[in-house]
Amino acid sequence: MDRRSFLKTSAIGGGAAAAASLAAPAVAQGQVKLTMVTTWPRGLAGVWDSVERFVNNVNEMSGGSMVVEAKAAGELVGALEVFDAVTAGQADMYHGADYYFVGQHPAWAYFTTVPFGMTAPEMMTWYYANGGMALHHQLGEIFGLKSFLAGQTAAQGGGWFRSPITSADDFKGLKFRMPGLGGQALSTLGASVQVLPGGEIYQALSTGALDGTEWIGPWSDEKLGLQEVCKNYYPAGFHEPGAALSVACNLSVFEGLTPEQQKIIEVAAAEAHQHNYALFIANNGPALDRLRSTGIQVQEFPDDVWDAYGSASKEVLDGFMDDEIFAEIRNSAEASMASASGWMSVSDSAYTAQRNRVLGG
Amino acid sequence: MDRRSFLKTSAIGGGAAAAASLAAPAVAQGQVKLTMVTTWPRGLAGVWDSVERFVNNVNEMSGGSMVVEAKAAGELVGALEVFDAVTAGQADMYHGADYYFVGQHPAWAYFTTVPFGMTAPEMMTWYYANGGMALHHQLGEIFGLKSFLAGQTAAQGGGWFRSPITSADDFKGLKFRMPGLGGQALSTLGASVQVLPGGEIYQALSTGALDGTEWIGPWSDEKLGLQEVCKNYYPAGFHEPGAALSVACNLSVFEGLTPEQQKIIEVAAAEAHQHNYALFIANNGPALDRLRSTGIQVQEFPDDVWDAYGSASKEVLDGFMDDEIFAEIRNSAEASMASASGWMSVSDSAYTAQRNRVLGG
Repeated sequence: MDRRSFLKTSAIGGGAAAAASLAAPAVAQGQVKLTMVTTWPRGLAGVWDSVERFVNNVNEMSGGSMVVEAKAAGELVGALEVFDAVTAGQADMYHGADYYFVGQHPAWAYFTTVPFGMTAPEMMTWYYANGGMALHHQLGEIFGLKSFLAGQTAAQGGGWFRSPITSADDFKGLKFRMPGLGGQALSTLGASVQVLPGGEIYQALSTGALDGTEWIGPWSDEKLGLQEVCKNYYPAGFHEPGAALSVACNLSVFEGLTPEQQKIIEVAAAEAHQHNYALFIANNGPALDRLRSTGIQVQEFPDDVWDAYGSASKEVLDGFMDDEIFAEIRNSAEASMASASGWMSVSDSAYTAQRNRVLGG
Repeated sequence: MDRRSFLKTSAIGGGAAAAASLAAPAVAQGQVKLTMVTTWPRGLAGVWDSVERFVNNVNEMSGGSMVVEAKAAGELVGALEVFDAVTAGQADMYHGADYYFVGQHPAWAYFTTVPFGMTAPEMMTWYYANGGMALHHQLGEIFGLKSFLAGQTAAQGGGWFRSPITSADDFKGLKFRMPGLGGQALSTLGASVQVLPGGEIYQALSTGALDGTEWIGPWSDEKLGLQEVCKNYYPAGFHEPGAALSVACNLSVFEGLTPEQQKIIEVAAAEAHQHNYALFIANNGPALDRLRSTGIQVQEFPDDVWDAYGSASKEVLDGFMDDEIFAEIRNSAEASMASASGWMSVSDSAYTAQRNRVLGG
């Protein structure tokens, strides 16, 4: 089985794979120093918290024998350059969202989130107990990386719309900000999909250059002030139902670490995944309450919009199924998702619905 | 504020608190050896996995400088004796379900699960991001313990019934196995609540000594063969919506460890919490499918039963509200639960319901 079928036909992927990893981390007085580049601005709420949590726990658990230093986007390399920097050995590791690197290989999307994909609990189930982590390592190995989930934004909101969405037809010509495979899916519905960085969204909405946008969730969206320019908020969205963040080490660097250092990185990453999930949920609840109090309308998409989201998502994902690795990873993720969801829908979800009904919550 | 109000009036609690902790872990050739007693039989599916995961990760991350050895129930002390053994310094730490120790203090229940309480994602939110861990430490300190969540069974099933439950009246006189506060709640509905260990359940159902039972979930229940003696299975239950397991260290022992050893225990415990949750969900899904294929009836309790569960749960929890610590912990947990649930019901749950509808799952 040729596991590199995608790479053979991908100039970008091929280039990345060809970058030989000859890196060795800096070692001075018995201390390994690891430079971690990131795809994030320093201090970005929630996301940077997972960077700090991982770094602090690694440094504390290793008792000074291994020190990770995090660099914000732009400090050493640009946000989207971290992948190539680590595969080439220019940096020892990165913290980022792997779906930024679908140009290197489309299957990276599964280690962040795909449209109509897994929630965070479903991701935990797949990644930690149904083979997801092994597939992450398998994909990473092609590029000279050792990858671990290390953050989790939980379900991202469906977004902000100037006018309510009453049917799937409302997307025709709608100028909407949504990156990634979700954006590709939305464009098949006729939307004019745009990709703007966070810092430019508010103004684009104010001037009418955008009719709406998704960002992250109430906690983060409130900080951008989106409630000031759009009054219709859809908490549930199809495009990022549980977005994981990853740490990826240069494989040669990782293999040069001691077994205890390797284990410290693995366990600290997993702990950061859970902790970050908790942090986002803990902050999204109160933020949603504050947003409601500003007079925004909390909306739900009608069924026909969800039907359209489902078809569009399938179309986008099906487009990559010629790639053997993508197909293997998608099939694994979807099988785990179906099984986990089958159980949780009759246990957790049924319980929660009844509890909330009885408590009036 | 007198934080020991419960202890003053509790012979058991007072006794436990009075047990001075003079323990020091065994140290030989620079290696700390920690003996961990547990409330579990060796190899118990799912639960013992979290013991092994925690122990292996601690031992590997510490590179041999700290070695934890796990003892099954009965090997050093009995299952329910682990709490006193660790507070007294007879063992260095325990792995167990803290709600076994509601006799020492009723608030321990909140660090496993309470009826009509939190699901696992809600527990993660409270414990890691809304102050739950600090309250766990605060409660533990009274008893000379340092406690961390270290396992998670996810939502436990509503249980097995010989005859379907059609209304809350059906519980009157029903001989049902359910331990803990859930069992207390069920008895207020008129059930004849019994507490039997797992090994005795099958026979009690076979002989008619029991009319029904809860155990853990499809994965574990199938191993007991409950599907052979009861045909009505209720996947959603009120009594243990997300049962966490804990590691508790003798506080003096913990404080004698180096900062990196302390951090290794903390992070390994949190990692085991997430990993164990994933493991239970990954195994419950396929087990439920197998159980369905044996011809059992998968049922849901009617609304009036859930209403009764809600009232009974509140009555039991209200009975402890004179205790200041219990009230503080309950109020914290319920506030976090309401906030997290408010967000998740309009995001994750709304998404999952639509996705499953569209995918036909």
